Amino acid sequence: MKIDVLTIFPEMFKDFFSLSLMGKAIEKGLIEAKAVDIRSFSKDKHKKVDDKPFGGGTGMVIKAEPVFAAIRNCGALKKNACYKNRYKKPYVIYMSPQGRPLDNGVVKELSKFERLIILCGHYEGIDERAMSFVDDEISIGDYVLTGGEIPAMVLIDAVSRMIKGVVKEEESVKNDSFYNGLLDYPHYTRPAVFKNMKAPEVLLSGNHKKIQEWRLKQSYERTKKRRPDLLKAIKNEE
Amino acid sequence: MKIDVLTIFPEMFKDFFSLSLMGKAIEKGLIEAKAVDIRSFSKDKHKKVDDKPFGGGTGMVIKAEPVFAAIRNCGALKKNACYKNRYKKPYVIYMSPQGRPLDNGVVKELSKFERLIILCGHYEGIDERAMSFVDDEISIGDYVLTGGEIPAMVLIDAVSRMIKGVVKEEESVKNDSFYNGLLDYPHYTRPAVFKNMKAPEVLLSGNHKKIQEWRLKQSYERTKKRRPDLLKAIKNEE
Repeated sequence: MKIDVLTIFPEMFKDFFSLSLMGKAIEKGLIEAKAVDIRSFSKDKHKKVDDKPFGGGTGMVIKAEPVFAAIRNCGALKKNACYKNRYKKPYVIYMSPQGRPLDNGVVKELSKFERLIILCGHYEGIDERAMSFVDDEISIGDYVLTGGEIPAMVLIDAVSRMIKGVVKEEESVKNDSFYNGLLDYPHYTRPAVFKNMKAPEVLLSGNHKKIQEWRLKQSYERTKKRRPDLLKAIKNEE
Repeated sequence: MKIDVLTIFPEMFKDFFSLSLMGKAIEKGLIEAKAVDIRSFSKDKHKKVDDKPFGGGTGMVIKAEPVFAAIRNCGALKKNACYKNRYKKPYVIYMSPQGRPLDNGVVKELSKFERLIILCGHYEGIDERAMSFVDDEISIGDYVLTGGEIPAMVLIDAVSRMIKGVVKEEESVKNDSFYNGLLDYPHYTRPAVFKNMKAPEVLLSGNHKKIQEWRLKQSYERTKKRRPDLLKAIKNEE
């Protein structure tokens, strides 16, 4: 998968693209990722990309023009381009609290694309007319952040985990929260007793069937207690 | 506000604490933030903090012991400590997909604390027994990430915006999505016509009353179309 992040803070991605899971996935060639500076597409001699909002009010708005130019430069707006299937066409995503909420289903869907172009707003946002060049608006949650940069990292991390080879043990992904619609079960490791707290005996029993039963029950009970909305969603799907 | 992030990837926070809004808030002394390496609390000579899960399965689990030591080192577990009110007591948060979902209400609540200690998991998570030293488990959304580091950035960014002086124009925060329970209205800036797309005339009219009405209507219509669940939530509150 190839990922371009369009941002006015490309330096925010330097560490993200070099550390932990992402760093390894890029090193192994499983993912190709770069941050592109929207400012480099400004025609302004001071490389300014924002201006005051029409209609007044506080804050600044990123102009449609450099955003359009940056998206086009990624090869996303080719006229009469022909793709074998929809997942081969570059897919342009705008990170915004107005978008559709990200969840595990959206993550799985996005992981099928060969090329993602992720647009990050900043300040008050981007001129609405730039949305005509965007395929999807995605929100990571119902809260407001300073820019789309951290949300882009959230999206990239979540999507990358679905790409074969990125997470060493695929089992690991299948046991994660939400993969089966439930929250994850609790984990324990050595020592068996810590500050008078014992790890559950069943985990030390060596009885794999019982361990699996215990874990599934924990997942279910935890989801029921903390997130009954998730259980309802599973029932509606069935 | 003072923020300590407990992580095994402290280097991931270097850019985050120095750029954009956070960089300025820290420079101005409005926020004091640092990333603390959980590894430095390992008693292991190789500074190892994780081990295989009890009961088998893939992945590694971070041990309870160094996590406990790191939290205690922040002054969060003092016995018989007396605080003037609950917001003066250090508040320990574990970033986890099993937590309660972050939203604007949670963000506002957290912004009242004088001291946040944010614990980031990695790999399969943290030994469940460490949860006895945690006040709150928070999830940024229903998807799985490699670690709690990016979620911690999400939380810190959102909470910081509520602290007086961090966002230059307070009006700006009040107009954001979710502040009044609605999505934000669309923004436009120069030029008035871009690629045959005109900015809405009302915004160029100079009639402030009409502009305000238009914006509120746009916010409402957009919320109704994209996130009817948010409108329902407002009605239930009333």
